[in-house]
Amino acid sequence: MNPVRVDQGKSIKTVMERSVNPAAISGVRLASGASGSKYVGRADLTLIEIAEHSSVCCLFTSNKFCAAPVTVAKNHLSEASTRYMIINAGNANAGTGVDGEESALRICETVARLAGCAPAEVLPFSTGVIGEQLDDTPIGRIIPDLLSSLSAENWFAAASAIMTTDLVRKIRSTQVTCGDTVYTVTGIAKGSGMIKPNMATMLAYVATDASVDPNLLQTLAKDSAEKSFHRITIDGDTSTNDAFALIATGQAGSDLIATAQHDHYHGLTEAVTTVCRLLAQDIVRDGEGATKFVSVHVKGGRAEEECLQVAYTIAESSLVKTAFFAGDPNWGRILAAIGRAGVDTIAIDDLSISIGGHVILDGGRLVTDYNEADVAALMQLKEIELIIGIGSGDACTTVWTCDLSYDYVKINAEYRS
Amino acid sequence: MNPVRVDQGKSIKTVMERSVNPAAISGVRLASGASGSKYVGRADLTLIEIAEHSSVCCLFTSNKFCAAPVTVAKNHLSEASTRYMIINAGNANAGTGVDGEESALRICETVARLAGCAPAEVLPFSTGVIGEQLDDTPIGRIIPDLLSSLSAENWFAAASAIMTTDLVRKIRSTQVTCGDTVYTVTGIAKGSGMIKPNMATMLAYVATDASVDPNLLQTLAKDSAEKSFHRITIDGDTSTNDAFALIATGQAGSDLIATAQHDHYHGLTEAVTTVCRLLAQDIVRDGEGATKFVSVHVKGGRAEEECLQVAYTIAESSLVKTAFFAGDPNWGRILAAIGRAGVDTIAIDDLSISIGGHVILDGGRLVTDYNEADVAALMQLKEIELIIGIGSGDACTTVWTCDLSYDYVKINAEYRS
Repeated sequence: MNPVRVDQGKSIKTVMERSVNPAAISGVRLASGASGSKYVGRADLTLIEIAEHSSVCCLFTSNKFCAAPVTVAKNHLSEASTRYMIINAGNANAGTGVDGEESALRICETVARLAGCAPAEVLPFSTGVIGEQLDDTPIGRIIPDLLSSLSAENWFAAASAIMTTDLVRKIRSTQVTCGDTVYTVTGIAKGSGMIKPNMATMLAYVATDASVDPNLLQTLAKDSAEKSFHRITIDGDTSTNDAFALIATGQAGSDLIATAQHDHYHGLTEAVTTVCRLLAQDIVRDGEGATKFVSVHVKGGRAEEECLQVAYTIAESSLVKTAFFAGDPNWGRILAAIGRAGVDTIAIDDLSISIGGHVILDGGRLVTDYNEADVAALMQLKEIELIIGIGSGDACTTVWTCDLSYDYVKINAEYRS
Repeated sequence: MNPVRVDQGKSIKTVMERSVNPAAISGVRLASGASGSKYVGRADLTLIEIAEHSSVCCLFTSNKFCAAPVTVAKNHLSEASTRYMIINAGNANAGTGVDGEESALRICETVARLAGCAPAEVLPFSTGVIGEQLDDTPIGRIIPDLLSSLSAENWFAAASAIMTTDLVRKIRSTQVTCGDTVYTVTGIAKGSGMIKPNMATMLAYVATDASVDPNLLQTLAKDSAEKSFHRITIDGDTSTNDAFALIATGQAGSDLIATAQHDHYHGLTEAVTTVCRLLAQDIVRDGEGATKFVSVHVKGGRAEEECLQVAYTIAESSLVKTAFFAGDPNWGRILAAIGRAGVDTIAIDDLSISIGGHVILDGGRLVTDYNEADVAALMQLKEIELIIGIGSGDACTTVWTCDLSYDYVKINAEYRS
């Protein structure tokens, strides 16, 4: 296999105040505009055009009551290859029944009619308030403008237009050199609450110019999500609208990657996973009311599933999260969370807890030279690393979460999401 | 069977400012005092004396890392009948290893030596901060005082002395007439955070003067807990120390109730369940930062387990709880919670949601005459009833919870629990 270089130096981190555009993907054009249907004075509608002969795959929410656009998108994906994605922010079109599906379908039909394709070649996505009917009239009205302003350079504007309670735009890009080919991977995402494994009010669109067989792209998407979007939690809620779309345009000028044994597959997977992981972490950092970013590493399980149970129980504990907010190394709450995680074979004698590299508990007992003041000082930092050992197995995993602050309550008591 | 009269009119609701003592139970004496080991200027140690020939049973936390006193109490229960219970507030003696067990044991030994019984006849209980060693010296020092001040009239003082973050004392009492016998049931409880099925930082001590076979008492305790302490949640956390002790002194002067077929069993069970349910609801009302008491009724499941899954997913959703805090009838969040509850057979067409008697969703669709302002007005009340229909099955259940407020974050960011 050729040497793989994942050039993370080229990844672009964009925050709200900056106006940096990430690397364009040949074969993907975007446009955003203001439909005026929900927000005033900001773009809320985004159109993504995908070149013919691209591979497209989507992973959707596991919520049983998925939103109308999710139902329509799943149907369309089974009927045709995808040429357009259209995303509205502000109204989730969820809990809206048949009317909601008809509304989503009319949006696809409008795009199709104006772009000269079949409605099934258009996928609709929505994010925002659940339970309000989506009026597609103002949306339909600006679709002609979007079609005429499509550009490969519009990723930044699209990342802004898909935001709801997000405070920060989420755009990431990286390149990887495989043999003589340089592949670019660029993605945008939105989401800051209702986040939980299997993707919540999260929408993510990641594109690469690699040429990938559609079936293999599905595997690549699942594997990347398993190391990124499926490893984050903000409040344990899973929304009705989550979706992660992965697009491979094939315009980098290389051969089709048809199997996992292909020389380029490993490098490309690493690049896509890097972009997904950075986007997922951006979502946690922008978690509703979040003041701290917490990495929960769990090791020593007999299987990854066991480590995940422990990691999520810690990451979703309101008591642990409020302690992180306070910068309080309250390891007793972590201990209690591990004890109720449902892993029957955990023994307290095998347990270790470290915060920021400081071992607190070893073999189930407080270490003799434990200095709480040192750890409390570390917990004032914006990024906290928690390492939990639960035994002598080989499995490990990492989950990313944030703290629980006054502002989480404020945002969710005041905002209709 | 004789007619059963559960005289709820005699139940005593006691709030912090009042100094009402509930009905005494012949055969149970209590005493409380200030050990000075954690709190200043308040009682923190409680001794309960149980007359010989009483039946005693205890249900303990399901947390894998149960506290040292839980381990010691389980051992003692298997070795001897119980004559004393001793409860300290402020330090949970959890995560304290062998030292913690030795400390709990020394407390039992001190009681035993001074009271003239075997150490195994004493059960220790602790509640408070996890992870700090419990110094038993100040506790041992006041045990003689407690033994000399035991009285059947001290329930109120005991309910105060077992409190930690509780704002309100929890005492309930009721009487039931079975045939010619009047049974009294009196209980106290503490707990306001880390509450979840299978009992969390919850301690509850309920006594009756009925005469009940020890094995049957175990069944009675489980059945009562299943309808009370196992149906509440504040933050989804389960502590290391939870315990529910049920005492039957047999001093009401009636026959032994040895089987569930006994004439008095049904009435007694109803009385014990009433006291337990009232105590459990008191805990929720006193939930950390709680401003609203929410009853979540779920009906139409194929089995109670299914209804429970849905009820708990709603009751534990931070998004639903912040909406309750805001008095916002945000049924979209309830819908999303039901959809991720893990009940595969739920179909949106079978779904109904009512708040305070107002039907919002019926057959999965918003009812045409839904008036949000009416429901929002209802949600300003301190008590909110939520009724969820999930299908056409016969099973149903009820879970009680509270909202998630700024003060929950404040209490848990500032208090070391």
